[in-house]
Formats: sequence, C-alpha cells, structure tokens
Amino acid sequence: MTRDPRYDILFEPVRIGPVTARNRFYQVPHCTGIGWTQPETLARLRGIKAEGGWAVVATEETEIHPTGDCEPFHEGRLWDDRDIPAMAIMADAVHEYGALAAIEIMHHGGSAANWGTRLAPMAPSHRPIIYYSPVQARRMDKQDIRDLRKWHRDAAIRSKKAGFDIVYVYATHDLSIAQQFLERRKNDRIDEYGGSLENRARLLRELIEDTKEAVGDKCAVAVRIAADELIGDIGLTHDGEARDVIAMLAELPDLWDVNISNWPNDSQTSRFAKEGFQEQYTSFVKSLTTKPVVGVGRFTSPDTMVSQIRRGILDFIGAARPSIADPFLPKKIEEGRVDEIRECIGCNMCVSSDYTSTNLRCTQNPTMGEEWRRGWHPEIIPPKKSEGSVLVVGAGPAGLEAALAAARRGFEVHLAEAGSDLGGRVTRESRLPGLSEWARVRDWRVGQLERMANVSIYRDSTLEAEHVLEFGARHVALATGSTWRRDGIGRDSGFEVPGFDLQNVFTPDDLMSERVPSAGPVIIWDDDHYYMGGVLAERCRAAGLDVTIVTPAAMVSAWTVNTLEAVPIAKRIARLGIDVVTYASVVSFDGAKVVLVSGLTGEASELLCASLVTLTARLPVEALYLDLEGTRDRWTDAGIASLTRIGDCWAPSTIQQAVYTGHKWARGLDEEPELLIPRELPRIESGRLKVDL
Amino acid sequence: MTRDPRYDILFEPVRIGPVTARNRFYQVPHCTGIGWTQPETLARLRGIKAEGGWAVVATEETEIHPTGDCEPFHEGRLWDDRDIPAMAIMADAVHEYGALAAIEIMHHGGSAANWGTRLAPMAPSHRPIIYYSPVQARRMDKQDIRDLRKWHRDAAIRSKKAGFDIVYVYATHDLSIAQQFLERRKNDRIDEYGGSLENRARLLRELIEDTKEAVGDKCAVAVRIAADELIGDIGLTHDGEARDVIAMLAELPDLWDVNISNWPNDSQTSRFAKEGFQEQYTSFVKSLTTKPVVGVGRFTSPDTMVSQIRRGILDFIGAARPSIADPFLPKKIEEGRVDEIRECIGCNMCVSSDYTSTNLRCTQNPTMGEEWRRGWHPEIIPPKKSEGSVLVVGAGPAGLEAALAAARRGFEVHLAEAGSDLGGRVTRESRLPGLSEWARVRDWRVGQLERMANVSIYRDSTLEAEHVLEFGARHVALATGSTWRRDGIGRDSGFEVPGFDLQNVFTPDDLMSERVPSAGPVIIWDDDHYYMGGVLAERCRAAGLDVTIVTPAAMVSAWTVNTLEAVPIAKRIARLGIDVVTYASVVSFDGAKVVLVSGLTGEASELLCASLVTLTARLPVEALYLDLEGTRDRWTDAGIASLTRIGDCWAPSTIQQAVYTGHKWARGLDEEPELLIPRELPRIESGRLKVDL
Repeated sequence: MTRDPRYDILFEPVRIGPVTARNRFYQVPHCTGIGWTQPETLARLRGIKAEGGWAVVATEETEIHPTGDCEPFHEGRLWDDRDIPAMAIMADAVHEYGALAAIEIMHHGGSAANWGTRLAPMAPSHRPIIYYSPVQARRMDKQDIRDLRKWHRDAAIRSKKAGFDIVYVYATHDLSIAQQFLERRKNDRIDEYGGSLENRARLLRELIEDTKEAVGDKCAVAVRIAADELIGDIGLTHDGEARDVIAMLAELPDLWDVNISNWPNDSQTSRFAKEGFQEQYTSFVKSLTTKPVVGVGRFTSPDTMVSQIRRGILDFIGAARPSIADPFLPKKIEEGRVDEIRECIGCNMCVSSDYTSTNLRCTQNPTMGEEWRRGWHPEIIPPKKSEGSVLVVGAGPAGLEAALAAARRGFEVHLAEAGSDLGGRVTRESRLPGLSEWARVRDWRVGQLERMANVSIYRDSTLEAEHVLEFGARHVALATGSTWRRDGIGRDSGFEVPGFDLQNVFTPDDLMSERVPSAGPVIIWDDDHYYMGGVLAERCRAAGLDVTIVTPAAMVSAWTVNTLEAVPIAKRIARLGIDVVTYASVVSFDGAKVVLVSGLTGEASELLCASLVTLTARLPVEALYLDLEGTRDRWTDAGIASLTRIGDCWAPSTIQQAVYTGHKWARGLDEEPELLIPRELPRIESGRLKVDL
Repeated sequence: MTRDPRYDILFEPVRIGPVTARNRFYQVPHCTGIGWTQPETLARLRGIKAEGGWAVVATEETEIHPTGDCEPFHEGRLWDDRDIPAMAIMADAVHEYGALAAIEIMHHGGSAANWGTRLAPMAPSHRPIIYYSPVQARRMDKQDIRDLRKWHRDAAIRSKKAGFDIVYVYATHDLSIAQQFLERRKNDRIDEYGGSLENRARLLRELIEDTKEAVGDKCAVAVRIAADELIGDIGLTHDGEARDVIAMLAELPDLWDVNISNWPNDSQTSRFAKEGFQEQYTSFVKSLTTKPVVGVGRFTSPDTMVSQIRRGILDFIGAARPSIADPFLPKKIEEGRVDEIRECIGCNMCVSSDYTSTNLRCTQNPTMGEEWRRGWHPEIIPPKKSEGSVLVVGAGPAGLEAALAAARRGFEVHLAEAGSDLGGRVTRESRLPGLSEWARVRDWRVGQLERMANVSIYRDSTLEAEHVLEFGARHVALATGSTWRRDGIGRDSGFEVPGFDLQNVFTPDDLMSERVPSAGPVIIWDDDHYYMGGVLAERCRAAGLDVTIVTPAAMVSAWTVNTLEAVPIAKRIARLGIDVVTYASVVSFDGAKVVLVSGLTGEASELLCASLVTLTARLPVEALYLDLEGTRDRWTDAGIASLTRIGDCWAPSTIQQAVYTGHKWARGLDEEPELLIPRELPRIESGRLKVDL
C-alpha cells in the first residue's frame, strides 16, 4: 500500500541543529522501569522503536551524578565512564534502523532521596524533597553550581562518546534541578540565581550553553521544559513565567520539547484527558522560536498529527505512550496502513511499570518489554510449524489477542463467543464513565481479525465440553473470563459476608449489565482498590443517588498511585460529593444497613444503605474447563493436542495481563515449553564463579 | 577481657540435625533491600555477621521459582542453576568465619504480583494477592502442588550445592504459600489439602519431608512458622491452630524458628513493642518438641537472652535487627565487652531499605550496607595517617559518631556541645511518647567516648567562628544540627504562611523544650509525614487537649509505610480520639482559627484552633558555618586543613543519615576524596563492550 499524500507532511525531514531527523515522529524520553538495570533489554526495546519508523528515539531520564539518585526507580545512569557501554548499546540499536538517538541527561536535585548513594540531595534552596521521604535537599552554594555544571557537561561528553545525536537539558515534570531553579516556590536565593526570572533561568541558560559548547559540534541540544504546571501563578504558566523563559531562551537550544508538568499532568489517563489535551498549554511556543518544537498529547490519529503541524502548533509529533502501544505507528502511516495502528488506550499500565520497577508493559502491545527477554517483535511472529486448527473460546481481550496472534502465525482460527458482542470485559467496562477508549483493545483486534481469511468468528455461541471435543481443533484456548464474586470473599474477608446474597446487593457485573441500583443511599464496598470502585461510584452518582465508598485501605483506589490517577480520582470523587469512609470493613448487610468495623479501633457502626455494590474479588469462569478436565482421556481421540486457559479464566488480573497471556499462548503453540526465562543476571567478580553442579 | 560466666550458656554448641551451631546466636532470615541484585555486597554483609560471632547466618527469603516473584522488592533467588554462583559466594563468606549458612527458600504464592515475570501467582484458593495489586492468584490443582513440591525440592538441592548448611521451609509473615495453605481464610479447598487442620498442614508436612529427603543427609531442615497472627481465631493462634500444627509436626524438622506474623507484627518498632515482646506467643513451642527452637524479640540484653534459655523459652537467640545494629554482638558478650554492644533502637530504618529496594541501612550501625561498596567494617577502622587534632562542634548523633570514629582512628578529638546535654535531637526526641529507646544512639556513643583517653568533651560550650579559628584543630566538623522552620515553608507551601509567627504557634522544637500548648483545640499541621506529627499529637492528647492532625497527604504519617508503622500509628491516633483531616492545607492562621484549603475540591474552610503546631521543614543551623565561610582566607594560618558540615547541619534528614555522615567524615580524614563509588554494574554481553573513550 502507499501512503496517503495527506500525511506526506509527517514524513518531511527536519533539521535539529547539526543533525537531521528523517521525519516528524519523535519518541520523547519516557521511563521503562528498566533503566540502567538491564541494558540489553532496554537497547532492544528502543531499537525496535527506531525500526518502527520513529525519527528520534530517546532514553528515559538519565542521571548524571550520584547526588541525584532516584532509586528504587530504574532510570538511566551516566554517573561516570563506567556507564558508557550500557548507554552505547542502546544508541547503537537505535542507529541500526536509521533513527537519531537522544539522551535526557538530568540531575534530580530536590526530587530524589538518594537512598542508594546516601548522599545529600541538593536544590536551589533548603527544601524537603518531593514525595514524603524524610530527607531534605540542601541549598547549593556557588561551588555546588559549578560542580553541577561540570557534571552536566561531563555527562554530555559521555553521551556523545556513547553515540547519542541529541543531548537534552531537562526542566520539567518537577523532577529536575533546572526546573527547580525556575520555580519561585522552590528558589528563594538572593544571589544571581534567584529573584528575577532571568536570574532563576540562569542555570538553565548555562546548562544549555555548556552543552552546546561541549558537544554542539556534533550533537543537537534539546530543552525539555514545562509549558505549564497547572497550579496557577505560584508555578510556571503558559501565559506567565513559562512563556517568558521560553521567550528569553528562544533561539538558544536546537529544539524545544514542551509539555505540562508534573508527570501526572503530562501523562493523564484517558479517563481524565483526551488526544491533544496539551495543545492549549503548549501552542504558544512556536510563535516564540524558529527552532523546531516537539510536544505530546497521546497522539494516535494521523489526521490530528497533520493538523498539529499544519496549524503551526508543533514541528514534531512527540509520543511516549503511543510509541509503546505501537512502536510501528510511523511505519504504518508511511505505508498506508493507518487502520493497523494499535492506539494507546490511556490506561497507564506503562507508568505502573516504572512505579513497580519492572519491565515496561502495555495493555495494547503484549510484546512491550519482551523484545530481548523472549525475542518478541511487535510486528513479526514466527509462522506455525504444524498443521491443525485453533479454537479460542471467548472473545474478550485474551481471546481476541490469542486468536489474532495465532492467525498471524498462519493457523486456521475459530473464535467462539457466547454473547453477541465481542470484547468481553473491555466492551462492558468501556461503557462506564471515563473508560470509553478501552474499547480500542477490542476494536483494533476485531479490525485485524475481520480481514483475515483464516479466521472464523462465531457470536452467540456458547460452547459446552462436548462441542469442544467435537470441534476437532488441535489447540484449544479457553478465554471465558471471570465474574465478580457475590459472596464477599476477597482481601478483607476470607469468608462469606452475611447478607451479600440479598436482592439489593450488586456487583460490577450487574452495573455493567444495566442492572443498576435504583435507590440510594448507595454504598460501594471497595475491596478491589483499582479503578472500578471509583468508576461505579461515579456511575451511581450520575444517576442522582447518594453514594459512599467504604474501603479498608487508607485511601480510595489505592493502587492507582501506580497509574498517576490517585489524586485525580480522589478529586473527582470529592467534587461529585461522594463520601469516603477509609479503614473500614463491611461485615454484614441486612438489606437496609451495613455494619462497618473500623480497622483502626475495632469498633462497629451502622450505615444506612438502600443499595450495596460490592467489589471484593473475581472468580474465573471455569465451568467449561472443569467439564473438559473431566474428559481428559478423550482429548487425544478428539484431536486435541493442547487445551489452555488464558486471561482472567486462568487468573483474574488486568486487561493488560489478559492480552499478554493470549499473545503468549499463541507464540507458544508448536514451540518447546519455556523452561528458563532469559534474564540479565548480576555480574559476579569474586569467589566461586563455577560451582560444582 | 573474659566472658562473664553467667553468659556461658549462650556459648554452648547446639546440634541442629546433621550440623552443629557453635553457640546460641542465630541471625534469622532478614531482608536487606539487596537480594539477588548485588551478590558481592550481600556476601560481604553476611560474612561480617559470621565474623561477629553469630553461629548461624541466614539469607533473606529466597524465591524458588518465577511464579513467586516479588519484584520490585530485592530478595534472594534460586529460580534455577544460574542463581547458584551468587548464593554460593554468600555461603562461602559465612563459612569463612566458622558459622553455618542458612537459606530461607520459599514461594510467595498469593503474596507476590509477579510483575517481573508476568506469570500468574498461585495459591490454595482463588484470592486477590495481598497488598492492593490488581492481580489474583489462581487456585492450584494437584499438578500445581506436585510442581511446587518439585521446585522446592530442586531449590533445596541447589541450596546444598551452593554450600548451605540449613535449609528452611517457610510458613510465616503471611508471605509464603505453605502458610497460605494453613490459613482457613485463604484455603477453602475441598480436597485433602483443605478442610481439617491436618489437611491444611499437608503441604507444609510434605515440604519438610521432601527437603529432608533431598538434602537432609548433610543439611538441617528448619521450619519458620507463625506462632500467632494477632487476628484472633480467623488466623493461626498460639493457643489454637498454630499450636496444633506445631504439635502435629513437632519432631519432623530439625529446628523450629517461630515468630508472630505478619511482618509488621514481627518487626514492631520500639514505639510499639519492647524487648522480648514475642515471648507470650512463642513460649509454648519448646513444650511440644525436643528439637531446638529459635525465636526473636529484638534481644540486645545478654541477661534477657540467658533468661530466655534458662526458662526454657528458646534454645537459640534469634535476631535480625540486633544483628544489623551490631554484627559483633555475640563476640562482645563472648569477650566480656557487654557494655560495647550497640543496641538496636527499634526504628526500622532497616526495614525501609527493603521498602525502598536499596542497601540495608541502620541508625546505630553506619557501616551496614557499606561492607563491600566502601570496604567498611563495623569494628575495624583504619588508623589515622597524619597528626593533628579534630574539633567536632555539636554532640548530636552526627557529632557523637564523628568524634567516636575519629577517636578510634587515633586522632586527638575535641567535642564541643553548646548545651549541657549530649545527644542533640536524639536526646530531645527520646523524651517524646514512644521514642525513649532512641537515646541508645547517644548512650552507646557517649559510653564509648568517655573511656577514650584521646577525647575531650566540652559541655555548655557555644563556639563562635573566632573560637574555632583559635582552637588549632586540623580538621573541623560542624554538627550543629537543624531547627524546625517557623515560617510555614515546606513541601506544601514554598512561601511563608500568614500567622505562623503568632504566639500560639509551636514547632516540634518548642514541644521538645517543654514549651507546650496549654490550650486546645490543638491543630497539628503535619507536612512532615514521618513520625513526628503523630508523636506530637500523642503528646498534646496526653495533656488532655483536643487534637486534630491536618495533612496534605492521603493519610497520617504517610512515610511510615516504609517502617511498618503506618497502621499502628493510625490505630493509636484513632484510639486516642485524635481527629485527622487529610488532603488539606493550612493556608493561614489568625490566632483563633486556621483556614484550610482542600487539596481535592480547592474549597476553603475554617477550623477553630487555640494552639497550632506546625511541622513543615527544617533549616540547618548554619550561622557558625557561614561565619567561618567568611574567614576562609584565615583557615590555613589557623591550621585548619578541612572544615566540613555533617548531619542535619549539612542537610536535615534522618538520625540514621546523621550518624552515617558523621562516620563517613571520620573515615575520610587523611584519605583521598572518593571519586568513584564502587558499584555492582550490570553485565553487558552484546554490542560494544569497549567504547572509544
């Protein structure tokens, strides 16, 4: 296929100082949960983005010195020359596919506790570090500023040695020292680095100048900066100090990379922000500079991208999350395969990788983070090695991905769905407040499946064990999903809770099937702690009912700290007038009131409740599996070589995990079982390297 | 010196199955924040414990399989043979000093999300995993149980190959699958592994039997088990099911290692539990078995230890935290140096290392975690290389440690304290509710200093710049501490807060100086988030005042999740009738009421307040430093070769950090500046290993 000429503009080369990007697709720096800890894993991950057509592929934030050490988060490191080889293999991997390699060197200043290095953090003024660690940053003196500049310069030189083409100066997300100097609220210095905006911008200017002088002959120098902090005039604003700083330094760097600070603002989920949400804050930048500007906004639509360029908002389409969901997004536009783009759903499972310091994962892209470890490629999958058809039972996220991956391998695929809608939980959940984009998980897969000749989809097809046995498929995947428990068993209670079988008790499944509480007050008993409790509270509130969320945790939707949503959710809940009772357990229900027991005092109390919505745990829908398990002796005769549970039917988890297990299943067909997962092992230099095995 | 015969009993060898411990000191398994990630670091750390006289030195929990992967926590790994070399160097390091090496192999079951390996957790029954991750464990079938037994057996064999002498079966802390099978609330199986206690204990029995069969010829098999879960009859209790299980399996293992589950119960801080606090729960065990029993209770007193043995409570004195605070505790008792024991203060900074996945750190022992990286030894410090005396200004935790470490190096040390009490913040804070043991930081150091001939201590000696210049010391350390800010500047506000200069506004310094609120209601404005806010609330409540804590965080004392204290603190606050307002900022005070702004809705409200206690941030006491800085041109003539700020005077932080910086300063005297911190770097196998530097 050929490219739609309308998108030609996206493929114009753009000069960035001494280097030239082949097109306008720019993977801005983003965390991976990998950083310095697994160099091979990271190099391969970034290399595949280059292969997918991104003109620039950047690192995550890369620390320049042990005084800015953000362990336990896994970010990049260029503390000294020992770190160059690890960074070099990433730059090489990016160059292999013709992209420019960018590196975001930075110092955390007052945003890291230095738990690993045990050194004192430093900052423009005496301030506690962000987050709640019992650690303060010390006020830098002039020598500290000279030291910092030297470290930054040394790191720039190391970056060049490692092969990078673009070197950043980083001043956003409230994470870097250059931004901290800019911020009035963090900089009360009385010397030439404090006071006026010009003074507060002095360090930023010096870092840019230092970097240009050190490596500007061969490397472009980019500045990544906050265009707004969304905290009004006490912070940087797009019509105030952020604008003034950019105006002041307009022509100094080779490129401006702009976004809204802090990270929770920059990476808002689809529940809170839609494509292009940053434009109102960043659009001013191009009017101030002749240098190219890159910005983000979870762009997945090529038409939106073109509009950004044509309207003079941006020169480069920046992307972090969309490049994770589809590393081949640029290539697909270039090759006229726009309908193959796997669009980011904005769930921030990727962000949770960084928060759990584990390999980057993605709901839409099951190969993300597995490029080195399992050798997975997002666009290439090995062809099948044997004949025989595949039957997938259930067309939720696991079943759809399993069917698609198996079909791409060349298997004849039969996908049977009991209901009339495809998508399973993704379809049901996407109808809830704020979750509409989650349907992309379904839509992309169904779109791909429908054009494949080797796939048959059967709707309204409830299969029983005999049907499966009669079907004649060689490989069977059961993706029958899970249902929310109605008995109260979960984390808080290991035993059934009295009254949860009453008529006015609801589970998320009820609400998603339009069996909705009609009377308030509604109590949402949220022992789930992810998004669902808050979403259902919104749903009931929108119906005009009084709603109280009861949780045994210290806060609502406790796990969403990992997706940057905890505060936005708490704000939305509060603004909707939904009450919250924390540290409490629902221990019984009599149809009109619940008994709560405080997790702190142990005291019991009662709360009126016309409708009780319970979120405790889920149960796999495993009846079909158990029936089939009972016929194991007939499988061979039925031609069944393997029968496997995937997704929530195997173990209820996230949508991301469902997609991943579906994909992994298809990859594993005809392959030897995976006995040893490849790992990047620690180096051992002393002692017994060889053990008598 | 020679050992007090009263303690002889502690040095009797004790047989454990096929091996013999040289004495009764037993370092039970404990986390380090290091685990598999830094084998050299860990081996040296454990080896030094062996050198310090512990008869048994154990690993942390060591995972046996990728299906039980608790990343991002850094624990041990024996997933397969590739992990043996890393474990072997630790066993070797322990053997080098004549101790037995023990390994706590385990499977997390329903207590790990497997974020790293992306495999489904497994458990006796379908249950969400502990913590709040959106992941459920799947119910194991019979094949899973057979697999688990094989993995455990294989790991036992690997343990033996790696050189371990004692192999654990782990069933406590609510972290291991064997315990999950025991728990009625997590095991609703209807097969022979569920139902009766005998059935629920079947897996535990099988794991013990398997391990004995696999490695029992050479290795002892220990069982670490919960004697109580402190949740009443829905859990294991010392007079119920825990007792019955131990009775049932009494003679099966070679050793019983007993504690109270979960980890927050086992490792309670000194604010909540005192030495020997577990005895009431664990004392029954010895009556049921002839096998040796090890238990813990933050034992630091040899008399208490002897009592435990003589009264038949324990056979081994188990220790985790006391062995961290003083790796040489056994040696000091053995050599009649009981007054040199550096006693654990029960602050759980060690635990916070695990929660931040960074090297083990300890308030009392500044060398902990630095044994490999910096080559530090807890008992040996290099002698000075030059003449000249040392002046330390300020006798808080940093100053005391600096003086002591310098004195141990042989310097002539002068320690000047402005007040009449030594100990600085440690002394002041130790008078607050629950913090009395923190005085041990002072007492141990003062005790050591007072017996050294080369140390002079000057009380009531406020030094000014001229005094320092006149003093003639070659090296000067300024350890003048910090004071709490009175202007409202901190995390929540970067600007001064109106009204914080009024008469009825207090800081922690006031309360520690007995300038205490006399009228309620009291508002504690806690923008500090560690222990102090809750402690001061207790202090004011004890004076009979109504108290409300206001915090911008989602919970009280938010950072104490890292010291296992968040729930105990919240419980105590609630039980004392102290109110808590979360997500709120104090934006002004007029002497009679504060104005609060909600962090969620942005709405303002007023709260009556007769006394306002503010905890926002601290400021280094740096007047002396700044004065001296102005005389830099006179330092050489004054004989000053170095002048350095340490502790909170350098950057306000934890007491642990103050002690550490004091120690580091003394180690660094006469040494070349540390340019590169040794690190365990990742292994790179592909690409450019050599970069053209």
